[in-house]
Amino acid sequence: MKEVDTKRGIIRIHNGHLQQTIDTVVTEFPVTVKVNGQEFVTMVCTPEHIEDMVIGYLVSEGVLKTYKDVKDIWIQEKEGFVHVKTDNINPYYQNLQNKRYITSCCGMSRQAFVFVNDALTAKKISGINIKITPDHCFRLMRQLQETASTFQKTGGVHNAALCDANGVLISRMDIGRHNALDKIYGYCLKHNLSTKGKIIAFSGRISSEILLKVAKIGCEIILSKSAPTEFALKSAEELGITTVGFIRNNSMNIYTRPERIANINITA
Amino acid sequence: MKEVDTKRGIIRIHNGHLQQTIDTVVTEFPVTVKVNGQEFVTMVCTPEHIEDMVIGYLVSEGVLKTYKDVKDIWIQEKEGFVHVKTDNINPYYQNLQNKRYITSCCGMSRQAFVFVNDALTAKKISGINIKITPDHCFRLMRQLQETASTFQKTGGVHNAALCDANGVLISRMDIGRHNALDKIYGYCLKHNLSTKGKIIAFSGRISSEILLKVAKIGCEIILSKSAPTEFALKSAEELGITTVGFIRNNSMNIYTRPERIANINITA
Repeated sequence: MKEVDTKRGIIRIHNGHLQQTIDTVVTEFPVTVKVNGQEFVTMVCTPEHIEDMVIGYLVSEGVLKTYKDVKDIWIQEKEGFVHVKTDNINPYYQNLQNKRYITSCCGMSRQAFVFVNDALTAKKISGINIKITPDHCFRLMRQLQETASTFQKTGGVHNAALCDANGVLISRMDIGRHNALDKIYGYCLKHNLSTKGKIIAFSGRISSEILLKVAKIGCEIILSKSAPTEFALKSAEELGITTVGFIRNNSMNIYTRPERIANINITA
Repeated sequence: MKEVDTKRGIIRIHNGHLQQTIDTVVTEFPVTVKVNGQEFVTMVCTPEHIEDMVIGYLVSEGVLKTYKDVKDIWIQEKEGFVHVKTDNINPYYQNLQNKRYITSCCGMSRQAFVFVNDALTAKKISGINIKITPDHCFRLMRQLQETASTFQKTGGVHNAALCDANGVLISRMDIGRHNALDKIYGYCLKHNLSTKGKIIAFSGRISSEILLKVAKIGCEIILSKSAPTEFALKSAEELGITTVGFIRNNSMNIYTRPERIANINITA
């Protein structure tokens, strides 16, 4: 099975000092559950205790009544399949056999959808249409926080903002991570506001789904106070997006495409 | 449209002092998008900028090519529908018309599935099989944090633990919120470990999906350092689950069923 985390080189900025260093990032692993040979659900997860997860999922969601209904279960690691044999599937689910499109969250919800669909809309960013300094990054994250009144009241939502180097242009909040980004993009489309050379500042973790959404919107820098996943960073490299995470307390990590962060001289 | 947040009475404990007070909690609102009269997707969101969200979603995911393909869009507030008229839907999606089971995250991913399915497995907790003190709550959250080594390294995962009053029995982590809970439940099923009178300690927000998963597992108290949503609290009341959130810095909020928190005398 894949490791639950992995190492990669990053640029860390702390109190104005720059350092090339090694960071640990969490992995994402898509597991497709096949019940009696038929694809049932794809869950994106951290690759450990997979068998327990599938059993817990099937019984808690009522697909199987009890653990005893699991006649056999085995994992095909390389392919990412978990096979379950049962004589006693809940008839309710047998009739829904063609509706299994439930995906994992928050690692990458809607991911099955996203996967088949990425080729359609995730744009590779060409060129460098904006450069910002580390100070810009700190300032934009502060502005994002200042606009986040509902979060301050309830602590229950994600915040996202479309920015340029001068500041926040539009900010939206939602209990759903990607909803906040969809709200921003819809506004841009309606008001013919270009996303070229723009930045997304985001309050939550940078999962692959969030990264892909940023690419679909057409922004080229994503800033977050939280951590990215390994798969998000792979996608960022491929799509040409600059990823800056853990922006807090005068520190930040530049994970991909540092060429859009100006005024940094890297010392090993 | 519904409000983005709402007030409700809670019991707040701070430095050992108890107070009945009013708290603000975030709402969840399911929106079903109908494209040319056909149900396309249900998104659970914060109820503002809904039209922008739907436009941003449809174009970023490539369902429509441009904003111009939106011939008409209108919201049926009470029913929770957003109607979209278009002459130019991506043919790829026309062929998938019966596979639209993508749901929102993290407010409540997999929710369409959850809704149709709750009656099957979400158990109403009967009686009070465990009582814990506020000190227990603080200690269990500390223990949860101590077991969370990958989070400490990467900052990228959710942690959950099954506990009794004496401490953490088993803890699991995952990039997907409910995956961590499924991993715990699967372990219990395999090892015949009863969940009756047990507690779930959780690192993330208490969305309705997480609350329902706790009910399905059969635990009766959920502890979190984060915020709950309004719908999670409604479900908790109905299912008889004690919800304690914002457990941090010697403070906590008891939202529902305070009768399982011992040694508290409430002063208005």
